[in-house]
Amino acid sequence: MAVIGATGYTGVELVRLLCRHPDVELTVLTSQSYVGQPFWRVYPSLFRYVELECADSAPELVAAEADVAFVALPHGHAMGVAAALLDKGCRVVDLGADFRFREKQTYEQWYRIPHTAPELLPAAVYGLPEWYRERVRTASLVANPGCYPTGALLALLPLVRAGWIDLRGIVVDAKSGVSGAGRATTLTTHYGECNENLRPYSVPGHRHVPEMEQELSLIAQAEVRIAFTPHLVPMTRGILCTVYATPLRTVSATDILNLYRETYRDEPFVRVLPEGMLPQTKAVAGSNYCDLAAAVDARTGRVILFSAIDNLVKGAAGQAVQNMNIMCRLPETRGLEQPALYP
Amino acid sequence: MAVIGATGYTGVELVRLLCRHPDVELTVLTSQSYVGQPFWRVYPSLFRYVELECADSAPELVAAEADVAFVALPHGHAMGVAAALLDKGCRVVDLGADFRFREKQTYEQWYRIPHTAPELLPAAVYGLPEWYRERVRTASLVANPGCYPTGALLALLPLVRAGWIDLRGIVVDAKSGVSGAGRATTLTTHYGECNENLRPYSVPGHRHVPEMEQELSLIAQAEVRIAFTPHLVPMTRGILCTVYATPLRTVSATDILNLYRETYRDEPFVRVLPEGMLPQTKAVAGSNYCDLAAAVDARTGRVILFSAIDNLVKGAAGQAVQNMNIMCRLPETRGLEQPALYP
Amino acid sequence: MAVIGATGYTGVELVRLLCRHPDVELTVLTSQSYVGQPFWRVYPSLFRYVELECADSAPELVAAEADVAFVALPHGHAMGVAAALLDKGCRVVDLGADFRFREKQTYEQWYRIPHTAPELLPAAVYGLPEWYRERVRTASLVANPGCYPTGALLALLPLVRAGWIDLRGIVVDAKSGVSGAGRATTLTTHYGECNENLRPYSVPGHRHVPEMEQELSLIAQAEVRIAFTPHLVPMTRGILCTVYATPLRTVSATDILNLYRETYRDEPFVRVLPEGMLPQTKAVAGSNYCDLAAAVDARTGRVILFSAIDNLVKGAAGQAVQNMNIMCRLPETRGLEQPALYP
Amino acid sequence: MAVIGATGYTGVELVRLLCRHPDVELTVLTSQSYVGQPFWRVYPSLFRYVELECADSAPELVAAEADVAFVALPHGHAMGVAAALLDKGCRVVDLGADFRFREKQTYEQWYRIPHTAPELLPAAVYGLPEWYRERVRTASLVANPGCYPTGALLALLPLVRAGWIDLRGIVVDAKSGVSGAGRATTLTTHYGECNENLRPYSVPGHRHVPEMEQELSLIAQAEVRIAFTPHLVPMTRGILCTVYATPLRTVSATDILNLYRETYRDEPFVRVLPEGMLPQTKAVAGSNYCDLAAAVDARTGRVILFSAIDNLVKGAAGQAVQNMNIMCRLPETRGLEQPALYP
Repeated sequence: MAVIGATGYTGVELVRLLCRHPDVELTVLTSQSYVGQPFWRVYPSLFRYVELECADSAPELVAAEADVAFVALPHGHAMGVAAALLDKGCRVVDLGADFRFREKQTYEQWYRIPHTAPELLPAAVYGLPEWYRERVRTASLVANPGCYPTGALLALLPLVRAGWIDLRGIVVDAKSGVSGAGRATTLTTHYGECNENLRPYSVPGHRHVPEMEQELSLIAQAEVRIAFTPHLVPMTRGILCTVYATPLRTVSATDILNLYRETYRDEPFVRVLPEGMLPQTKAVAGSNYCDLAAAVDARTGRVILFSAIDNLVKGAAGQAVQNMNIMCRLPETRGLEQPALYP
Repeated sequence: MAVIGATGYTGVELVRLLCRHPDVELTVLTSQSYVGQPFWRVYPSLFRYVELECADSAPELVAAEADVAFVALPHGHAMGVAAALLDKGCRVVDLGADFRFREKQTYEQWYRIPHTAPELLPAAVYGLPEWYRERVRTASLVANPGCYPTGALLALLPLVRAGWIDLRGIVVDAKSGVSGAGRATTLTTHYGECNENLRPYSVPGHRHVPEMEQELSLIAQAEVRIAFTPHLVPMTRGILCTVYATPLRTVSATDILNLYRETYRDEPFVRVLPEGMLPQTKAVAGSNYCDLAAAVDARTGRVILFSAIDNLVKGAAGQAVQNMNIMCRLPETRGLEQPALYP
Repeated sequence: MAVIGATGYTGVELVRLLCRHPDVELTVLTSQSYVGQPFWRVYPSLFRYVELECADSAPELVAAEADVAFVALPHGHAMGVAAALLDKGCRVVDLGADFRFREKQTYEQWYRIPHTAPELLPAAVYGLPEWYRERVRTASLVANPGCYPTGALLALLPLVRAGWIDLRGIVVDAKSGVSGAGRATTLTTHYGECNENLRPYSVPGHRHVPEMEQELSLIAQAEVRIAFTPHLVPMTRGILCTVYATPLRTVSATDILNLYRETYRDEPFVRVLPEGMLPQTKAVAGSNYCDLAAAVDARTGRVILFSAIDNLVKGAAGQAVQNMNIMCRLPETRGLEQPALYP
Repeated sequence: MAVIGATGYTGVELVRLLCRHPDVELTVLTSQSYVGQPFWRVYPSLFRYVELECADSAPELVAAEADVAFVALPHGHAMGVAAALLDKGCRVVDLGADFRFREKQTYEQWYRIPHTAPELLPAAVYGLPEWYRERVRTASLVANPGCYPTGALLALLPLVRAGWIDLRGIVVDAKSGVSGAGRATTLTTHYGECNENLRPYSVPGHRHVPEMEQELSLIAQAEVRIAFTPHLVPMTRGILCTVYATPLRTVSATDILNLYRETYRDEPFVRVLPEGMLPQTKAVAGSNYCDLAAAVDARTGRVILFSAIDNLVKGAAGQAVQNMNIMCRLPETRGLEQPALYP
């Protein structure tokens, strides 16, 4: 298998998971910045785990050496490599945004570049296994969900499908660790700027909004619009989503937790916490879990939902491996069984 | 002047500000745990600034040596000392919750202890200077606002007074640094538990809810109920409030910012950021500022308000000094002029 | 197998590793503070991994349900339980200091309590597998090394054995993450005190000094005394040791690295970094590795050695599992194959 | 007064201190990256404090508007602007390395660029006020010491001058917060790389070595060479130096502390801690203090010295303001009276 764009943070997380996956052999790791260097020189944490050198291979060459390619490139780049990979029979899990939208226009409107491979969109499957497992199973091209959408959708979709909440007025207040911004050296991710600092960003109009709305609307079979505010938190890993909604009927926290438990009964990577417990990002850091909780504020009638994930695992690389496991008819948890590091 | 409960985090922050205040002489620092020790032994940052020893003085003795006493004790303790202080002519700024409520019942319901000095409540002034400066000026007993309420109210009150937002459905999603939990050694504030971790807590039902609702309702002249979710963020100082509301008329971010600028035109410690800038806690850390911003999500029609404060300064000790300055007819900014430490 | 003292940080790290160990069944988890609670309630990161409840079992009962017991108690407590465990045929890996010293007097002098089980000392094996693997193999009672000694000894012992450095004047300047102080809620480990702070502590006279000196002296066959200064670093995991020594002959960094490679050629958990690379704690965090490097300052002739470990893994729980694997004739790396989490 | 290079971290720290300095009027702030932008847009912490725009002014223009210029540029750049400033009668405090060396060759050897203004070196004064106050008083060009040298020299010089320690074998193990690396966006200072990580760097051969050796040798009147190892610590501010030396005579910690107290008796910014207390960086963060302590390890006879400073204050901008105060015959503490922020 191949990781295209292996030296970014989602790339190295894929390598970390795949190099210990018992059914996977890593054959190609591509990188633009580190061509010719052993991968472990870039990430000494993987010294002795990975012998491969970083290569700047064209997709055709990747396809010759891999039956599955994970694409961990900035948005706009997967469009240019996916067709070549697929043509050569290499299935693709894209961790970027290029294939997440049913409508080319949505992508172009929010990402402000033309979509150059719209013919691939119809066959692309949105890789949220808990909701699209069967379609993932037979997909050649999986669009791995964004980190924020993964957390928000796993919390919201059960209530939306059940018709329990007002589709208007949903608020998703999300908080992310800094690794979500990747490894590119920017002022935003400079230690002196983000350490001991908390800030909202991309307000209004973060690019994960249309992705969440698309998926919510599909399940709701009605148009859903959400208010979404992301915040940058001084920690490396983790996303916590706090979701506010207005119930359409009388519901209790117990009701919601029961709905969660029913919806996710057989899900290996969704943990519905017992009533009274709230999620924390550290309890999932390094793992592929999404922890869920719910509360109902009796005084305001407001429903409050919580989800916690590791943005690099369930929010990116771990979910991509989960999708690959499904596509390859492997046990879905293979290579993803590790619990979080705590403390 | 005296600080009662000087060795907690709000206590030391008061000492830090007051020891450099040109019009203040610190005469008494009380503490239960460190009686007889030089204060700087407990906080070596103040070596050479403060020569006083920690004393376990009774309020009568404090009143004999101070004309103003700052009370920085856990809730439930100021009730027992305020009368004795006031009786002796010592004015009081209480940084706890004991005198924040107009109604004794509200306090007793939320804090679950009897109020033992209800006779003092009518004269107590809620010390949010931007809204109650004139009453503070003549007060003998000021109830310094809670940290979360300070941030939330400064953002919300102008819109509530102007009647611009629906009083139902207000959401306050707040994020606080760990120093807000004080210096008591608990598992929640243990480094291994809160470092690299993000978690909601006290959901639903944090004790700052009734305080915010009381103040919002007073200004609105109608009952306001809010959904409030606090989160613990792995940093020492800072509170960011993200507030969601539904406008009752068409408003733009520009409108809200103009309203803010008008409301807070002469306020020394409220900074309305230019449109397009969002607050960050680091820009106020160590300072007495509250930074404000606003956005309107055109797609959902939702108003989003932001405020950032240092929970220990504008959220506690700094605001207390500001109140004292007002009470003592000193320039309001005296001793509070320092900008934030950045980076 | 059993973990005695499972709810401290070394305890939960043992549980994290053992619950995924393919040849281990956890049968008893003891705790004083959480008796009767499911272990995952205390550590929600292990929700779905561990069903056991915390029990306050006497050692006899532990021995009835486990063939190996890991003792993760504060020093002074293992002395009281080891004999009972061993008598019942339960082998013991003690992660505390009680059995690390060849001489009862050394223990009593540094830990300032009487040793109540001195009869067990002769058979206890110091569990540094890289140097005492064969003795560990047949041991019933293994004294797992301290975190600092593990890092310092792996760096120093090869040079000491080879006679390359002056035994006088060795300096070990060590820096540790806060989790090394355990889960007890103290002021030292309170977030507000140790976040964004760096401090030396226990100078001179940290209790790991005699342990390092004992082991260095044994290999040197001469008395070795070291200057050791530990520092508390604002991060959760990791120890970096910077060791200064005076060479007795002309050596280059290349020479030392070659000596390291030769000494640790077949070691699964010691990685000698290529010349020019320096260790970093993040590259080993969550893993059982010790990364080594060396430099020679041509201008001063000084040898500088570096080692990085995760204090909770190679410095505690991971090394304990490694010892157990050896004792049980399992592959030594079983259950310890995970690379570090990076970033 | 002017700050040349105002938008880096030492630049903004100068602006933070100078904008509140009662005897200073800031007239020019230069920047290459932010020309034409209000300074507070770059650093919103200083909103309402500084109205100046960033300018890309030539030194001649700066000199026309300022009688003192602080130069906070990367090394190699002050050489090109100092002469022009001095020629126009503008005194200069350079915070970089260009004028720190008595010998042009030393600079060129360690910084690997030609020195283009060697004619200025004889008149440049090394601005460590505790040791060169009188020379600073009359200087036109002050070379502000490096951050590591400030901490190490204040701890070492008293013992070196007194002849108490062996000049061979001095070890300086230093630990710095990340802000010391400036605001340039590099991988080293990328949050994901340095958060929760501890690493040595520049071993052997950090550029602060010759600076420390020059100053130690001058006071010792003999050649001194030190082993110096800097480490990057996951915190924003602070340097802790741990210094190891061999005493030439029997000394106790008390002796060393007495020597410190005598040497620094009238120093406003050196605090000798009482015996038994050890410095911590948080106790000086944001302040201009250097906290000193000492220990003697009776077992090894080794002297251990400790100093803590804020690398951006006493290690850079604060010391520069202190030098300026001396040069301008202002009270030396003017504008530098603030204690540290703690917690």
